[in-house]
This record gives sequence, C-alpha cells and structure tokens, in this order.
Amino acid sequence: MRHMKAVAPQVPVILDAKRGDIGSTAEQYAIEAFERYGADAVTLSPFMGFDSVQPYLKYHGKGAFLLCRTSNPGGDDLQNQRLASVEGQPLLYEHVARLAQGPWNLNGQLGLVVGATYPAEIERVRELAPTLPLLIPGVGAQGGDAVATVRAGLRRVGDDTTGPIIVNSSRAILYASAGDDFAQAARREAERTRDLLNAAAQQAEGAP
Amino acid sequence: MRHMKAVAPQVPVILDAKRGDIGSTAEQYAIEAFERYGADAVTLSPFMGFDSVQPYLKYHGKGAFLLCRTSNPGGDDLQNQRLASVEGQPLLYEHVARLAQGPWNLNGQLGLVVGATYPAEIERVRELAPTLPLLIPGVGAQGGDAVATVRAGLRRVGDDTTGPIIVNSSRAILYASAGDDFAQAARREAERTRDLLNAAAQQAEGAP
Repeated sequence: MRHMKAVAPQVPVILDAKRGDIGSTAEQYAIEAFERYGADAVTLSPFMGFDSVQPYLKYHGKGAFLLCRTSNPGGDDLQNQRLASVEGQPLLYEHVARLAQGPWNLNGQLGLVVGATYPAEIERVRELAPTLPLLIPGVGAQGGDAVATVRAGLRRVGDDTTGPIIVNSSRAILYASAGDDFAQAARREAERTRDLLNAAAQQAEGAP
Repeated sequence: MRHMKAVAPQVPVILDAKRGDIGSTAEQYAIEAFERYGADAVTLSPFMGFDSVQPYLKYHGKGAFLLCRTSNPGGDDLQNQRLASVEGQPLLYEHVARLAQGPWNLNGQLGLVVGATYPAEIERVRELAPTLPLLIPGVGAQGGDAVATVRAGLRRVGDDTTGPIIVNSSRAILYASAGDDFAQAARREAERTRDLLNAAAQQAEGAP
C-alpha cells in the first residue's frame, strides 16, 4: 500500500476485504482499512445488516462497496433468492441494490459489487441504483465479457447520468506470465484490458 | 495464537474472521486460517454461496461456522427476510441452517453462528440443524440471556442428541477492568460466566 501510494498517488486504492461484522468490530476494521492501510474504499458484505456498514460511513471522502451480485458460481445460492417479505418481491441482490441506493447511503459513499459474469444482472442493478459506482470484477480470469459488461453498467436510465463503473481484472494481469517477463506481460495485459474497456465504453456511449 | 497454543494446547481456537470470498481467494484464506495461524475453526459468511465455503472443508479435522442469525441490531435486515423461492418459504437464516445441516455439510465440519440475543431463533435453528455445533456470541456485553440461550441451544429435538453449543463472551471478559487488576478481573468474569453457563446447562438437561 505504501509503495502504491508513493508511485501512483492519484490512483484510488480499493481494499477488497469483504468485511462484515458487528458495529464495534466494524469500527476497528474501518480504522484498519482507512487509517492503517490508507485505502480509499473497502468492499463489505451486507449479510449482517446496516450496523455492520455504518461505521465505515463516518469516514467522509472514503467509499464502501457492498457485495450485491457476485461473480462466482455460488453467487446465486443466496443472492438470487426472491424475498417474499419485501414489497415487490425483489431478489436478495436487488434488495441490496435498493438499500444501497436509498436508506443505507447516508452520505453518498456507497457503491455495489456486481460480477462481470452476469451482464443482465449488471443492467438490473443499474436500473435499481442508477447513480452508484459499480465495482465489476470478473473480466479476465473469470471470463466476463468486457463489452457486454461496460454496456450494461453504463446504460442510461431515463435522463439520469449513471454512476461510474470500475472494472477489475486481477488474476489475468497478476499471472500473465510465470517467466522472467512477468512485469512486461502484466503491463501488456493491463493495457490490452484498458483498451478493450475504453473501446467498449465509446461503443456504449454511442449506442441508442 | 502461538501463545495460546503453547499455554492451552487442549483449547480449540476459533478464528472469528467472517471470511466470504470467491473460491480461489477462499483457498488462500483457508491456508491463512488453518496453516499460518493454526486455528481449529473459522467463521464464514454464507452470502457468496457454497463455493466460498468449500475450500475450508478440504481441511479435515478443522471446522467452519457459518453466520446464520447474528446478534447485532442489523442482523434481521437480510437474515430475517422470507424467501419466496425456496420450498416452505423459510427465512434466510433458516435456509442457511438447512444448507449447513444438509447439502453443504460434505464432511460434517460445519457449524452455525447464532446470536444469544435471540433465544427463540436459537431454538428454531436447533430444530433445523439438530446435530450441528452452534457458536453463540452475545452473552456478556451484548446482553444475551445465558440461561435462555443454553436452554434453546441444548433443547432436544425428538430423540436426537443435539450438537454441542459454544457460548462466547468477548468484551465483558476482555474489558472487565481498565485498571491494574485487568487480568484478575478478566479471570473473575470468565469464571462467573462459566459457572452461570454450567448451571444453565444442568437446568436445561433436567428440563422436561
């Protein structure tokens, strides 16, 4: 973290810690993420409810991305369950998206994690949370389609300007090569991914 | 951890890490918990589904407690939602209890975390997961009723022998005193809690 802040101070650092704990523990994890590590944002699990999220929101200028619809095979085990007890019977991930766009977003610091492996669900999350930043892992090693991802995440809803999307590729870049050329290979893969995403964004913006 | 294993090798250590991440990351967190720290069990969030739990089950002889019905105020935000899409329309925490007692429990290593602040829900979890170990935080600083907790967790369901319960008090013992007597005060509070729980267990076993 110290190295990243030294060589690339303008690049936001998101600590993918997926924390989710009771309020008193969350307070300490917030200190860890924002004071000890100096992260700009953190990922959180919403499973334990609002008081497990609230302590992070005391750090104005810092962000928190809630797990919403994750990119792994088991993501639908719970996240795709339909809730009988919430108006409109949303799926669990849709309910999380609504909470993050609405009542939980006290100071506008929340975003959502939505896997690139499910573009239709990114589109659905974008409908429910038009202004939130979306953190989208799963392009690269997990096989998500970059163009479909960008289109879904940047889709305009009515006349609103949508929130930004942050598309993440980890293993495809980290493990681009196991040889001596690992640094160059990682750079090539990062640039290739960047160009692909930028082209997709231009296409998406030009799309009807 | 080294100190605990040195002075009390017979005491199981549960790492309350509340991990929940995709399979490839879960594999690394399992190495951290069981190999690096030498923990005997770990707590996990079920929000990301079975493949976020499975890597821990490769360590035979180690355990994993899934968050089920947590003791914090926001615990009911998601855990108490009723699922329209699962047979019998269970609450989310009831569904987690069933998954842990059944299909997710490949090698009998799973347990559940159920807060002491909700004895009626411990009773419900015990019905759905009669043989699983229950890890029950919330006695002490969080105000759970020790006797009601033990009664609910040890309640027999039919003729089955129930799984064990592990009742946890953290802050009430850690912060028993801020003075020079902190060690003695912590010991006193630990012994008081132990005696209270043992008396409650005897009562529960004698109950009709």
